[in-house]
Amino acid sequence: MSGGIKAGLVGLGKIARDQHLPAMEKVEGIKLAAVASRNAQAEGVNNYPGLDAMLAGEPDLDAVILCQPPQVRYEAARQALLAGKHVFLEKPPGATVSEVEALIALAERQGVTLYASWHSRYAAAVAHAGQWLATRTIRHISIQWREDVRHWHPGQPWIWEAGGFGVFDPGINALSILTEIVSDPLALLSAKLEVPANKQAPIGAELRMATASGASVDAVFDWRQTGPQTWDIAVETDDGQLLLSEGGNMLRLDGEVQVQAPDEEYPSMYRRFVTLVANHAIDADVAPLRLVADAFLCGEHCPTTAFED
Amino acid sequence: MSGGIKAGLVGLGKIARDQHLPAMEKVEGIKLAAVASRNAQAEGVNNYPGLDAMLAGEPDLDAVILCQPPQVRYEAARQALLAGKHVFLEKPPGATVSEVEALIALAERQGVTLYASWHSRYAAAVAHAGQWLATRTIRHISIQWREDVRHWHPGQPWIWEAGGFGVFDPGINALSILTEIVSDPLALLSAKLEVPANKQAPIGAELRMATASGASVDAVFDWRQTGPQTWDIAVETDDGQLLLSEGGNMLRLDGEVQVQAPDEEYPSMYRRFVTLVANHAIDADVAPLRLVADAFLCGEHCPTTAFED
Repeated sequence: MSGGIKAGLVGLGKIARDQHLPAMEKVEGIKLAAVASRNAQAEGVNNYPGLDAMLAGEPDLDAVILCQPPQVRYEAARQALLAGKHVFLEKPPGATVSEVEALIALAERQGVTLYASWHSRYAAAVAHAGQWLATRTIRHISIQWREDVRHWHPGQPWIWEAGGFGVFDPGINALSILTEIVSDPLALLSAKLEVPANKQAPIGAELRMATASGASVDAVFDWRQTGPQTWDIAVETDDGQLLLSEGGNMLRLDGEVQVQAPDEEYPSMYRRFVTLVANHAIDADVAPLRLVADAFLCGEHCPTTAFED
Repeated sequence: MSGGIKAGLVGLGKIARDQHLPAMEKVEGIKLAAVASRNAQAEGVNNYPGLDAMLAGEPDLDAVILCQPPQVRYEAARQALLAGKHVFLEKPPGATVSEVEALIALAERQGVTLYASWHSRYAAAVAHAGQWLATRTIRHISIQWREDVRHWHPGQPWIWEAGGFGVFDPGINALSILTEIVSDPLALLSAKLEVPANKQAPIGAELRMATASGASVDAVFDWRQTGPQTWDIAVETDDGQLLLSEGGNMLRLDGEVQVQAPDEEYPSMYRRFVTLVANHAIDADVAPLRLVADAFLCGEHCPTTAFED
């Protein structure tokens, strides 16, 4: 890999074009060589109709980046790992927790990198928030994650299907930050899921959690928010208040702005991936996905009005 | 603990009376000293209306056995662990996977035993089945778990509520055997859940799984089976066929009966618990519960006709 990691990307949808391609352009040590997509083509690289064809046509690929919907992620990841490739998974890393656990076991056997990426953990203020909390006792956490699905997920019917996560697709970003900045294990205790009459996946959710030490954690996820969008995590401690907003890119401590910076999440993730591959290391934390699975497991289903895109 | 483990039991329902009390009578090294129950009393021991009162009234209890519905298991387990007691959890060990993970962390901090019991793993033929499979390559597994909910769960409304598991209450027994006899990690790939119009929890389920090595695993759980009851796991390997039936108490290899023995599950579990407590050890495998959470996470909800007990 003297010229850096030679990467092939599968699933040339919105997240791949908006984030992955520009990030790979920007980061040293990795270069996009090929794309596999049923319906789309990228410029300046070799294009294939699927992963099979890409693996056959590009035998010297080092890594495969998987950006398809989670329902089809597992078989592709398995195929890439069995072919000896390092694997980068867009979030969520799979349709189920046990899938990701099986992939971790397979990556260990193959001696290659598996990276389950959680982009919100790389938001500008998240690391600072975690450091500030590490020396304090948490009393209560309140999460508000409210956005407009029509704006953020146009033409993505898979998000409404079984295994598509619904409002947990953005909500898992909040949970990925939560599990990063809170070192104590988090238990999901109960949930309410609002599921539109014409969909399989929820459009709204309320979660009640607790840290193992006993602090309460409440979260509201809502996909029906028009106007200003809200991605806030507020933490009350024994020594001050923390507010992470703008999805983790802005930090206030006791009301004073400490960090406010533009989103550099995907370039940071690709730098991380380059380091992981150099060490054939695995970074695949299932904690955010486990909380989502738990919400579906114990959640009360509350039918709500049909939703039309 | 010279006279053995002094135990208090919480939740004097059907499973406690049918299994836990007789098993503790039978096993050396543990003795039931107290029971906490809102509505029921046991003979020959001290009775309390709840866990608070029992912990206050019996300061020298060594261990607490939790047999309440899973929805209220977590707070009680936490309270018992924080009081320094060893804890025995009836299955399922909690309403969510993350709850059990938090309890494991707490038991580690407290230096006490946490035992997440899976009674079907102690069925007479399970160990033999696991040994036979260990040297073979699995090609396919088929699970049929069909029983009559009216017979097995009379007067247990909690099983139909959110977090009550529905048909996964028996189905998790099959998954506990599966994850015991198959050493390869199991990935849940898709599921269909039949939910009665008047209930929160499924009455039927179909699961599609795979081993990390790629063998397919199918399971059908059904609570509407009258007449003969079916608790079968059939495994095709590269070197013969295995059939575990009667919930793990009967084993056939290539059609020949190898093991057929009466159920000794609960006494075996109490012997295990006595050993764990002697070592302050933790035995809490979340794999069966994780598969259930995953089935709810990715499962397609198929409404079915209302069910009246």
